[in-house]
Parts: sequence; C-alpha cells; structure tokens
Amino acid sequence: MSDERPEHSTGGVYSVPGQEYTRDDRYLATRITADGRDGFPVEPGRYRLIAARACPWASRVIIVRRLLGLESALSMGLAGPTHDARSWTFDLDPGGRDPVLGIERLQEAFFARDPHYSRGITVPAIVDVRSGAVVTNDFAQMTLDLELEWTAHHRPGAPDLYPERLRDEIDQVNRRVYAKVNNGVYRCGFAGSQDAYDAAYRSLFDGLDWLEERLTGQRYLVGDTITEADVRLFTTLVRFDAVYHGHFKCNRTKLTEMPALWAYARDLFQTPGFGDTVDFAQIKEHYYVVHTDINPTGIVPAGPDLSGWLHPHGREQLGGRPFGDGTPPGPVPDGERVAAAGTPLG
Amino acid sequence: MSDERPEHSTGGVYSVPGQEYTRDDRYLATRITADGRDGFPVEPGRYRLIAARACPWASRVIIVRRLLGLESALSMGLAGPTHDARSWTFDLDPGGRDPVLGIERLQEAFFARDPHYSRGITVPAIVDVRSGAVVTNDFAQMTLDLELEWTAHHRPGAPDLYPERLRDEIDQVNRRVYAKVNNGVYRCGFAGSQDAYDAAYRSLFDGLDWLEERLTGQRYLVGDTITEADVRLFTTLVRFDAVYHGHFKCNRTKLTEMPALWAYARDLFQTPGFGDTVDFAQIKEHYYVVHTDINPTGIVPAGPDLSGWLHPHGREQLGGRPFGDGTPPGPVPDGERVAAAGTPLG
Repeated sequence: MSDERPEHSTGGVYSVPGQEYTRDDRYLATRITADGRDGFPVEPGRYRLIAARACPWASRVIIVRRLLGLESALSMGLAGPTHDARSWTFDLDPGGRDPVLGIERLQEAFFARDPHYSRGITVPAIVDVRSGAVVTNDFAQMTLDLELEWTAHHRPGAPDLYPERLRDEIDQVNRRVYAKVNNGVYRCGFAGSQDAYDAAYRSLFDGLDWLEERLTGQRYLVGDTITEADVRLFTTLVRFDAVYHGHFKCNRTKLTEMPALWAYARDLFQTPGFGDTVDFAQIKEHYYVVHTDINPTGIVPAGPDLSGWLHPHGREQLGGRPFGDGTPPGPVPDGERVAAAGTPLG
Repeated sequence: MSDERPEHSTGGVYSVPGQEYTRDDRYLATRITADGRDGFPVEPGRYRLIAARACPWASRVIIVRRLLGLESALSMGLAGPTHDARSWTFDLDPGGRDPVLGIERLQEAFFARDPHYSRGITVPAIVDVRSGAVVTNDFAQMTLDLELEWTAHHRPGAPDLYPERLRDEIDQVNRRVYAKVNNGVYRCGFAGSQDAYDAAYRSLFDGLDWLEERLTGQRYLVGDTITEADVRLFTTLVRFDAVYHGHFKCNRTKLTEMPALWAYARDLFQTPGFGDTVDFAQIKEHYYVVHTDINPTGIVPAGPDLSGWLHPHGREQLGGRPFGDGTPPGPVPDGERVAAAGTPLG
C-alpha cells in the first residue's frame, strides 16, 4: 500500500480515474519466529498487535489470536474506525493514545522503524514494545506465523488452523479467494473506469458462485474443520452487505441472497472467536467516512438489518467439527468486548 | 425544482452540506382541460409529452398515457437518461433533436414559454407543438388531467384510474406515499447531514412497512383495480433495488426482501402498461451518472440481478380485477418499445 495507492493509510484518494485498482503489496516482511532468525523471536509480552475492527485484513489477526488463545502472550491495541490522510489513530483510547505504546498515531511506530518510511501506514501491524517500532505489517504472513511459530503459547485446545496435510489446498483456495473476493471487492469499489469495474464485478461474482457451489456440500472451505481459509473468507463476507454491496457496488446479489454462503457466514459468525470480534458500527463508519472520493457526503447508511446474523444456519447437518480435536475459545477477555452498538442486536 | 435545488434539471449539486433535502414544488401549473379554461383545450395532435424513461415522475405519465390509450392523441418525445447542468437533451434522437419540436434541449421549450424562466428544466413536460412552448410541467396534476380531461380520446376499454367514489382515499394514500416513499428516497439520497438522512430513512421504512402490511391482504392500494395510487407507487418501487437501495442508501432491506411489496411490484410489472415502459439501463445510467456529487466516479453498478421481475407473483389469489370493467392495453406501439438492454432479460 504505497503513498500513491494508500488503501489503508491516507484519506481521500482511492479511485484513480481511468485506472483499475491495484493493491500495493510491499510490506515490512520481517518475521517473528520461534527461532528468531530475523532478530525477533517469539516472546510473550514483548510485542503488541495493532489492529482495527473496521479493517478486514486486521480482523483476520484478531480472530486467529483469539481462536489460538494468544491474548495474554500478544497484547492488542485498537485504532479507531476512521483515520485521516496521515495515519490510523488511537482515538478510542483515553487521551487518544495507545496505553502501551504511548503514541497517538500508528505512523509514529512506522517512523520508529524507518524515519523515511513512505509506504502505507497499515493495520494489522505488530510492534516491538521496547523500541516502539513496527516489526511487520505483512498481514498474510502474520496469521500463519501466529499459527506455526507461536505454538508454545497457544491455549490448551487451540485448533490447528493450518494443518500440514491440507496446506497445499488451503494455499490454493486462499489465492483464489484473495484475488477474486478479498481484494476483488476493493477492485470493484476503487475502479477508476467502467471497464475496470465491470471486469472486477465479473471476477468477484465468478468467485462467489464458485464458493457458493463449493460450500453447498461441505461445511468448511478445506477439510472438515475451521482453517485459515475460513478466517480469510469470513472477514470479507461479514462486510459484504454492510459495505461492499452498496459502497463498493458489489450488487448483483446480497450475501443474504446466496444461500450456502449466507448460511456458512452465519455458522462462522456464531462460532466463538468470529462474530464476537465483529463491530458492524465501526466497519460501516470506516468505509463510508474514510473513502471521501467515493462517498463525499460522509453519510453512513443506517442499513442493512443485521438481525439475520443470529438466525439458525442449519449447517450442522453437513457434519464437520469446527475445532477438530480442539475446543472453542472461552469468553472474550475483559477490555476486548465489542461495544453493544456494533453487534447485530446491539 | 429551483435553480438552487435542481433535482430534475441541472447537474452536479443535489446534496447540500448540513441541509435536509427539500424539493422545489413550484411548477408551471397551466392545465390542459376539456373546456380549455386556461387557454389550452384538449385537442388530439396539438401537444407533445416530453418524458424520460429514467425519471420516476415522468414514468407515471408514460404509464397512464399507455393504460388510457392516448398514444395517438398525445405524441411523446423521450429525452435521454443523462443530462448536463443546463437541461435534459434529446440525445437518443437522430441528430440529437426531438423530431417534432426540432429542439436539442428541453430548456428551449421552457424559454419559449418564458425567456426568463429560472426554475428547473424538468420532465414530464407537455409542450404546445405550434408555439414550441411548455404548457405545464406539473407532474402531479398531469396524470389526473389525462384521466379526467382527456376522456374523449381514451381507448375503448380504458380503465378508470381515478374513480370518483375512491378519490378521497386515493388522494390520502398518495399524500402519504409521496411524502414517505416517492420523495422519501430522494430525502435519503440527497440528505446533507447524517441527522437529515437518519430521519428520512426512518420515515421511508415506516412508510414501506405500512405499505407492506396494507398490501399483504389486498391486491391493489385502493379498491380492487389498478388506480392512480398504484401507478405512483410503482415508479418508485421499480427503481428501488436498482438505484435507491445503494445510490440513495435506502438499504434496510431490498424490495425483494419485503414479500408483499415485492409480489405487488412484480404483479404490476407484469401488467401491460407497466413493465413494458421500464428501461432499467436508462434508470441506472441516469442516477449514477447525473448525481456527480454523490457518485463522483460516474461508475454504474452492474447489479442487481433483475430476472426476478418476471417470476410468478401469486397475487391473483387476492382477487381484484386489474382493469375493472375495462381491458388491458394492446402491444406497445412501434417506436415506443424499450430497447432489449433495458429489460430484465435484455
């Protein structure tokens, strides 16, 4: 996410006239690993995850952290739903500062890493608390590392979200889901020409039709338990009707009109670790307020009706064991609960 | 529709920051009547209706003209779906000129009426062909006059769309439908503040919930035949999912999610004189291209899937006789058919 294409970082310019939307995928790719080969070994209490409930990429990490029970090993700071042209900000925190890092803007942690940093100020980012510097904002690697490198600190009963025997298939599904769906909705919404939009729309619904068919006969995307693939798809689906359908013009059908996908999304939403991380109010505020070039009035729609997220999904009949040989996570820790206003019946 | 609030006339500014949307309802109110008391007697061939398939207010007149079989008595010119800051234009016609009036812009017919005319250049407008001057653009009176003043030229079997014994009830329903629904969607879409939008959204869905309940037990809005009230509601409902749901943020639910209203709308759509006047491609292009202040990219969404408009509606079981003692209109005359691209299966 570059300075020219600042999808996660700066305000105002997202859709470039005449151009298709291309995500800048140059991230700080330093890894936190068990063996510390990049200089950053896994260590409880050393790092802080900075996320935002509004952001689908950050929400992946919020979900995985909770499913694996890493809350006490890796603390979490949350930026507010909106940000200005410079940075995500900690406007939800008392005094507008992250209580651990002591900063007002996430930008400060990127500059602590590199005073000349010129790319996107993105969430999720993991910060080394002692130096206050961002270690990585490479969201795609981040969840995999929580799953494979942080195992010593997983809770008892943590599920295996990236089982070795399924990795090829998970990777393959993830690539397709990313191109057509996760990033596909952005390619619709930030298209700078009718042609670019039309192509992105076709690709998106081609992807969703494929998923609808795949999920008609099986409960989860790969294997018979929740995996990394489900986490990645979920964070897009949960935003679909609330923002992508209208704001990004992904409007062939609502999620609620795709029966298998809608039941699948509800099934995950009602699984501990998924829906209890979702803040619809922040999601809507983020997209409709931040993207001033496609929603200049900044008015946030009152819809859609979200009560359906809690309706029975009936997916148990497809079998599957959500947590495999593991167990669901316990209640959300104090201080990390979603405010009532952001939940479907809030 | 004034120069300040040019909903039908000039491009670019529809939503005024900090303000609620207020429709300018000052029209040229001269009437064409059987007795010619305003100087404009009903006379076949003398007048030309200028409409646009994109516009819900003009579409009322297109529908009523066809239901009553007034096509040969009152010719029709159609402006294209988009217009610039000055006027609706005849860009669909060869050479970009209305073949009868010989003008490129509807504005010219308003200036022929009043060289200092400063209000909205709106459709529908009825023009006296000899002088080339607009007689009236008062859309609310226009359909009533076609129904009550042009009776001598109605086709055999024309329905009574404004039956005397039901007029009070029709007027009452029309007032509520206008305030909450017909104009309510615009009050959502052009709201200049979150508060104004929120109030308009509540009023709109309050109105739609009332209609959903009313239409659950009866086939038509008033009485057991099609009336003026149904025409007025239809032109908003047919645009609901295509433009109002996303573009105007009327997104609690789609029309397709309100079972009685959706079946009622399909019933009318499938009735000769209604759906055969609807051009979805022009509707979408109009709203998404003309309202540059709420859709600066001008990109027109590819959705929604429109095939449902032709699905069975099951409303026959509620009884009712669409045309009462009359008959449906015949096929659409040559030269007035909607292009295939604008129809649900086009």
